Amino acid sequence: MPELRLNPVTREWVIIATERAKRPMEFKTQYLQRPGQPPYLATCPFCAGNESKTPEEHLRLADASGWRIRVVANKYPAVISDGERIRKQDGIKKTVSGVGVHEVIIEHQRHNLSTALFDQKHFEDIMSVYKNRFIEAYRDPRVEHVIIFKNHGESAGTTVVHPHTQLIATPVVPVQFRDRVQAAMHYFDDTGECLMCAIIKREREEKIRVVVDTDNFLTFIPYAALSPFHLWIFPKRHSAAFSTISVDESKELAYHLKTVLLKIYWGLDDPDYNFVIRSSRPQDAGNEYCHWYISIVPRLTKSAGFEIGSGMYINTSLPEESAEFLRAAKTSE
Amino acid sequence: MPELRLNPVTREWVIIATERAKRPMEFKTQYLQRPGQPPYLATCPFCAGNESKTPEEHLRLADASGWRIRVVANKYPAVISDGERIRKQDGIKKTVSGVGVHEVIIEHQRHNLSTALFDQKHFEDIMSVYKNRFIEAYRDPRVEHVIIFKNHGESAGTTVVHPHTQLIATPVVPVQFRDRVQAAMHYFDDTGECLMCAIIKREREEKIRVVVDTDNFLTFIPYAALSPFHLWIFPKRHSAAFSTISVDESKELAYHLKTVLLKIYWGLDDPDYNFVIRSSRPQDAGNEYCHWYISIVPRLTKSAGFEIGSGMYINTSLPEESAEFLRAAKTSE
Repeated sequence: MPELRLNPVTREWVIIATERAKRPMEFKTQYLQRPGQPPYLATCPFCAGNESKTPEEHLRLADASGWRIRVVANKYPAVISDGERIRKQDGIKKTVSGVGVHEVIIEHQRHNLSTALFDQKHFEDIMSVYKNRFIEAYRDPRVEHVIIFKNHGESAGTTVVHPHTQLIATPVVPVQFRDRVQAAMHYFDDTGECLMCAIIKREREEKIRVVVDTDNFLTFIPYAALSPFHLWIFPKRHSAAFSTISVDESKELAYHLKTVLLKIYWGLDDPDYNFVIRSSRPQDAGNEYCHWYISIVPRLTKSAGFEIGSGMYINTSLPEESAEFLRAAKTSE
Repeated sequence: MPELRLNPVTREWVIIATERAKRPMEFKTQYLQRPGQPPYLATCPFCAGNESKTPEEHLRLADASGWRIRVVANKYPAVISDGERIRKQDGIKKTVSGVGVHEVIIEHQRHNLSTALFDQKHFEDIMSVYKNRFIEAYRDPRVEHVIIFKNHGESAGTTVVHPHTQLIATPVVPVQFRDRVQAAMHYFDDTGECLMCAIIKREREEKIRVVVDTDNFLTFIPYAALSPFHLWIFPKRHSAAFSTISVDESKELAYHLKTVLLKIYWGLDDPDYNFVIRSSRPQDAGNEYCHWYISIVPRLTKSAGFEIGSGMYINTSLPEESAEFLRAAKTSE
């Protein structure tokens, strides 16, 4: 029988559709058989040698052989850097001017190297750049919320092959974030505990949904995963903000992200995916009921009218089976 | 400058991304140039002649020439019809058994006739079937919420070409629905008015986002449309539930839906789309602050990490321009 599971973080129900469920192997794409991309593309603004094609550079990590990671302004920004935050109200029409930060983090010189295949040191560098840009974006007094996210592949919303991450800092707080804060607050009211800390404890006891478990992080498939192979990376040390991550923790986080992206890459044949860092602001880091984390969403199914109409998801995989599959998945060729 | 607009129904901000905005014509797909489908397919369970391939039939609308519309149980249901609604709780793990209703409304005998091309009478019949199934599903005491939705095309989540709609009745109330009820309630608290009635009034005054306006319905692009050509059909007579629609209103609704689907079909070259009926339960029809409506979402862009991570949408079209384009779009070849 299908089962509805409650996601305690979003308070949304997910239908685990056993009647139409597929085995983990059935989610494997054929993407590794696609024709390869060249290591350098003359028309790609993110390729080494084409630096003049990007707008102003905000950060560069380099060594003797040239840059390793570049952070540049987005050429087609969703929100722009110049201008005042102005709020207008005219009856039910309410607007805020679209000011903020929209950056691209160019992860690597090479055009055709899938992020999953970067070495550990490169992942560590990326984590430190994420932290740097996260803190920097919040220095802008117009900024209320910062999202760091990656779109990998066309169905994840990108057409740019060159590996990159984006940061968007908005002049408003998204309702989705506020709803999660409220859910966490209710849980804290009821139990005196952080919801995420309680989830970590429970997942480590049950083990069946855990993919990677180390001293400071836990990577697992949520009990109410909203889609097949949806993953969470939780820091074990309670903190509301990603900005509090230590150097050692950052290296361990790099290991988790790298490992799980590799397992997806080899286990599911390089599927499209998004990941996003969900975090409170640096100044709210001490908050007892919020807990930052990373959410990874492979795009193996399409949302349809039911999801749009209800906000509920139908998941055609069993989280426990998917986790078992990923635990066994290889991390090298 | 980009502009953030507040959707008063969802309380979510939408970024109207002027820096990367496209003209309406640029959203045109090439789908009308696709190779055609046959009018009958031996392997399609929804085609006339293959009735034995569907699970039990719940309703049939027929005339002298055979059936016009059939309603059948879904062969791979998200929720199943047999069983008790059982709630289980084990710490943070909360489940409800997946019982309810999952039906397919086969809209037409013909395999290859796009819904937009049905004649007016056929649309009227479909509306009456929707109403019948909506009321019937709520007769099930295990059902808390009913969603009627259509997925047209692959990027809208369907692989079945034969025109059909689905109904899913769940044993829980989606959080998304409850959030909208709450937003509407707050608006009513503040103003003594229904939010949707206020929107209708405002849109009819401004006219620039209106696509079709008749005695009983208004079709328009929302001020904070979440994606390009996102449309709302609002009934002008206040009612919280779709089930209260009269025969005459139902015919007029058929006209609106047909007209707008045709305008999308010819104007944008038959893009993929979803539509969904958003409604309270029949027993809550008299509620003063809720107001049922239909939401149509053409799938012209892909949601990416930012949308997943924030719940906010980036819309690369200007609602006012899209509405102007649709007003001018033809409704026949």
